[in-house]
Amino acid sequence: MFLQNTWYPIAQSKEVRAVPLARQIAGQRLVMYRISDGSPVVLEDRCAHRAAPLSLGQVRGDTIQCGYHGIQYDRSGAATDVPCQAKFSPATRVRSYAAVERHNFIWAWIGEAEKATPETVPNLWWNDHPQWRGDGDTLFLKCDYRLLVDNLLDLTHETYVHDKSAGHPIIVKTPCETTWTEDTVSVSRVMGPFEVPPPWKGWVEKGLNWYGEVYRYHTCNFMMPGIVAIETGAVRADCPVPNDNPKESIRSMLINACIPADETSCWQMWVWPRNYAIDDHRLTADVVSSINKVFAEDVTMLEAQQRNISARPDARMIGIATDQGPLRAREILARAIRAQAVESAPVHAAV
Amino acid sequence: MFLQNTWYPIAQSKEVRAVPLARQIAGQRLVMYRISDGSPVVLEDRCAHRAAPLSLGQVRGDTIQCGYHGIQYDRSGAATDVPCQAKFSPATRVRSYAAVERHNFIWAWIGEAEKATPETVPNLWWNDHPQWRGDGDTLFLKCDYRLLVDNLLDLTHETYVHDKSAGHPIIVKTPCETTWTEDTVSVSRVMGPFEVPPPWKGWVEKGLNWYGEVYRYHTCNFMMPGIVAIETGAVRADCPVPNDNPKESIRSMLINACIPADETSCWQMWVWPRNYAIDDHRLTADVVSSINKVFAEDVTMLEAQQRNISARPDARMIGIATDQGPLRAREILARAIRAQAVESAPVHAAV
Amino acid sequence: MFLQNTWYPIAQSKEVRAVPLARQIAGQRLVMYRISDGSPVVLEDRCAHRAAPLSLGQVRGDTIQCGYHGIQYDRSGAATDVPCQAKFSPATRVRSYAAVERHNFIWAWIGEAEKATPETVPNLWWNDHPQWRGDGDTLFLKCDYRLLVDNLLDLTHETYVHDKSAGHPIIVKTPCETTWTEDTVSVSRVMGPFEVPPPWKGWVEKGLNWYGEVYRYHTCNFMMPGIVAIETGAVRADCPVPNDNPKESIRSMLINACIPADETSCWQMWVWPRNYAIDDHRLTADVVSSINKVFAEDVTMLEAQQRNISARPDARMIGIATDQGPLRAREILARAIRAQAVESAPVHAAV
Repeated sequence: MFLQNTWYPIAQSKEVRAVPLARQIAGQRLVMYRISDGSPVVLEDRCAHRAAPLSLGQVRGDTIQCGYHGIQYDRSGAATDVPCQAKFSPATRVRSYAAVERHNFIWAWIGEAEKATPETVPNLWWNDHPQWRGDGDTLFLKCDYRLLVDNLLDLTHETYVHDKSAGHPIIVKTPCETTWTEDTVSVSRVMGPFEVPPPWKGWVEKGLNWYGEVYRYHTCNFMMPGIVAIETGAVRADCPVPNDNPKESIRSMLINACIPADETSCWQMWVWPRNYAIDDHRLTADVVSSINKVFAEDVTMLEAQQRNISARPDARMIGIATDQGPLRAREILARAIRAQAVESAPVHAAV
Repeated sequence: MFLQNTWYPIAQSKEVRAVPLARQIAGQRLVMYRISDGSPVVLEDRCAHRAAPLSLGQVRGDTIQCGYHGIQYDRSGAATDVPCQAKFSPATRVRSYAAVERHNFIWAWIGEAEKATPETVPNLWWNDHPQWRGDGDTLFLKCDYRLLVDNLLDLTHETYVHDKSAGHPIIVKTPCETTWTEDTVSVSRVMGPFEVPPPWKGWVEKGLNWYGEVYRYHTCNFMMPGIVAIETGAVRADCPVPNDNPKESIRSMLINACIPADETSCWQMWVWPRNYAIDDHRLTADVVSSINKVFAEDVTMLEAQQRNISARPDARMIGIATDQGPLRAREILARAIRAQAVESAPVHAAV
Repeated sequence: MFLQNTWYPIAQSKEVRAVPLARQIAGQRLVMYRISDGSPVVLEDRCAHRAAPLSLGQVRGDTIQCGYHGIQYDRSGAATDVPCQAKFSPATRVRSYAAVERHNFIWAWIGEAEKATPETVPNLWWNDHPQWRGDGDTLFLKCDYRLLVDNLLDLTHETYVHDKSAGHPIIVKTPCETTWTEDTVSVSRVMGPFEVPPPWKGWVEKGLNWYGEVYRYHTCNFMMPGIVAIETGAVRADCPVPNDNPKESIRSMLINACIPADETSCWQMWVWPRNYAIDDHRLTADVVSSINKVFAEDVTMLEAQQRNISARPDARMIGIATDQGPLRAREILARAIRAQAVESAPVHAAV
């Protein structure tokens, strides 16, 4: 069961245009597109007439037209035109979802419409701040989205999964600090000073204009319903840590929206804004390409892990010390899903 | 549940030769081939011995020999030879199906053998009349066959699904007339005069030797258990409609046998005989190639529609005016399937 | 249900090295590899921590390290190191399986560990005898392993399945003799003299240095839990049969381990040692390549047979005379599986 009353990031802004895009989110088949004023619209991807996906149709100004028999729907999901028919039932409509665009993501509310509160959209300000810039990608993984959240909240895996790419033994050797609130978790680690491996090395040299050892830190921040924003930075080995001086330190924020498609598949919408060399498009392109290769190593592991779990879903798992971040995030999610079940239960059940 | 006591077209005559052809029809795995006198034989595609498909074997004159251990069966399904064994049980047999060849289709009766009445094979005379000729193909679609019947009985979809190929806005703008009997449905429309789009344009010009606007008409005729024969024709804009004068009008009959393979897949055996330019083989080849491209657009839509329906099989669908033909056909089918259920119910259940 | 208390051949010796190899055997996902002294280790392919397959990790001397978070396990399945953690629960372990290497196979015991008795490993001495040599391959088939055992115990199928390759009508024309014990079956046939077809012809000529007709014989020996060792030989037409004189006869032993992966898929680990021309590596390579092509014909048939059986699992099958070998083997297997069910039943159930 997925959380309903929450804002799900369902696409990155750049992905949504005046042509329909289909995406399954938390078990729901959605179609999204922009109408004439540029605002995003999110509807159920199923024509009310004969269940054809609206995503095979066309956006016509402010409506989307089903590609099968031509029925048109406005942004509220109401039919505005049924070919060969002057009048039609007001039941000729599809479900529409509250949608907002913020921080270069499109967010949709798949639960009770009256509870949709745009002010509770998570704050991912780094992704549209004028002094930060980056790019990313959207990946599809055949695993439970919580396995991806686990992965991103415990970076000790880098030492093993990425031992031939971005990993480094220092990650495992450095203790981390885990803190949490009612709906967030943070896992932090300051490493070094040491010589960072490629591909970080080139980026850090470019950002700091410094060719020696550095302190490196990361803080993995979990936010509901499945976001892991990893602040990561480097500080010259000869300077104090923490450090906000842009001549001595660089910062970036690897934002990951880990969003369920269904029970055993998910989307990883990632983007990595940084506060240095923001106009260096070659650096941006290199980050996207390098990080997609690193994530491909995780995908292999996560999908194999899912297959093992699906084969024996009830087999016991043993906890270890570095699970604390992932476990806290799962508790937050589970609590929210339990709360939702209570809210939607019939009254007598609570007596 | 599929209709049992009916003649299913299971292949086009040209597809069946002295080599086995496997095809699943209405949930039954069949093998078909021609014996030495050219007559078609239809058997269960499963050797009585160890369930090997007979379609992996060989036709030997009047028998088919299993390709695994060499058992041979005659046209009645009885074993005629079991290697390494002089005598064998009369239970060594496979099910055989009544089969007739008519109008360039092979028809099989999958229900109660004693009710098979060759005189009730649907009349598709255009397909083997000396003054009509055409060709076609057999397609496999991953959708319920009734979705394909719906598609072919409501040609308003051409305006949208085929907007970049054979479609035209005039179809939606022209009202249709729907008539029906106990076991047939017809949906008719006379359009124009207008300038027909390609690929029709070249064909009409060739058939009429006329280069201007024309009237165009189509009549979609549903026949049990899943045939849609679409009469389509064109008449010179300066001549009366309807019109049987071969100098002023041309006719053709796009025959579609929409036959279930299983609950969510089907065969579309199509052939398009015409009464003009019947010796023009390049025209015939162009029709097959062009129409297969048009049908590929339908296949994309129908398979996507099926996926949406399978995802939420009980979700409501809204009817619109142009559904009348498809709905009548579904009623006829549903009534026949209900009648069959009553017939085969135990007597006390009816008390 | 698979037999548990038995030695399953799970790989050929050459397949297992100091890198992990994953293989599903009788429903269990195993990882196997060699530790520093060369001995094989077989563990459950699922890390105790978060279910990642250990086969994605690395062998490090005497341990295997999970590729996700770096936990290491020794050959007993006990964790020896958990990164970031000085102490850890003794429950941090995976299941280990008794494993022995014999006759160039790795054998594992998936049942009750205390019943594992290395002396009961089937005797496949031809596969590591100094005067015998050959090579083979490991194939994956999408069918019940018992269908493969059936196939190898009734070689009349060669006449039909391999009619364009290694088959010959003489096989069907020659009666066979079937004998059995409590846990073995043998099916024998002496054919000829006749001119053997390729590819046998070249091999026999090389082995016997004789270019005329020969007697050919085969004896298919079933051994638990799914081994079919086919002794096959040729004797010069001018010499007596049976015949052990290496100038007048040649012998070889086509060993097939038919091992379930799950209910409808299996492994065929095959190797074909011979007692002639044992240093002729070109002959060895030719045998592997030719026999893999022959087996590919069986795979087509067996997988099609499985699909038919899966479609109607309860449909009746008719026995024929040549089934005797396969039927005896199935009885032996079924009896052993029934006995295991009785042994593991609660006591009161037997009262």
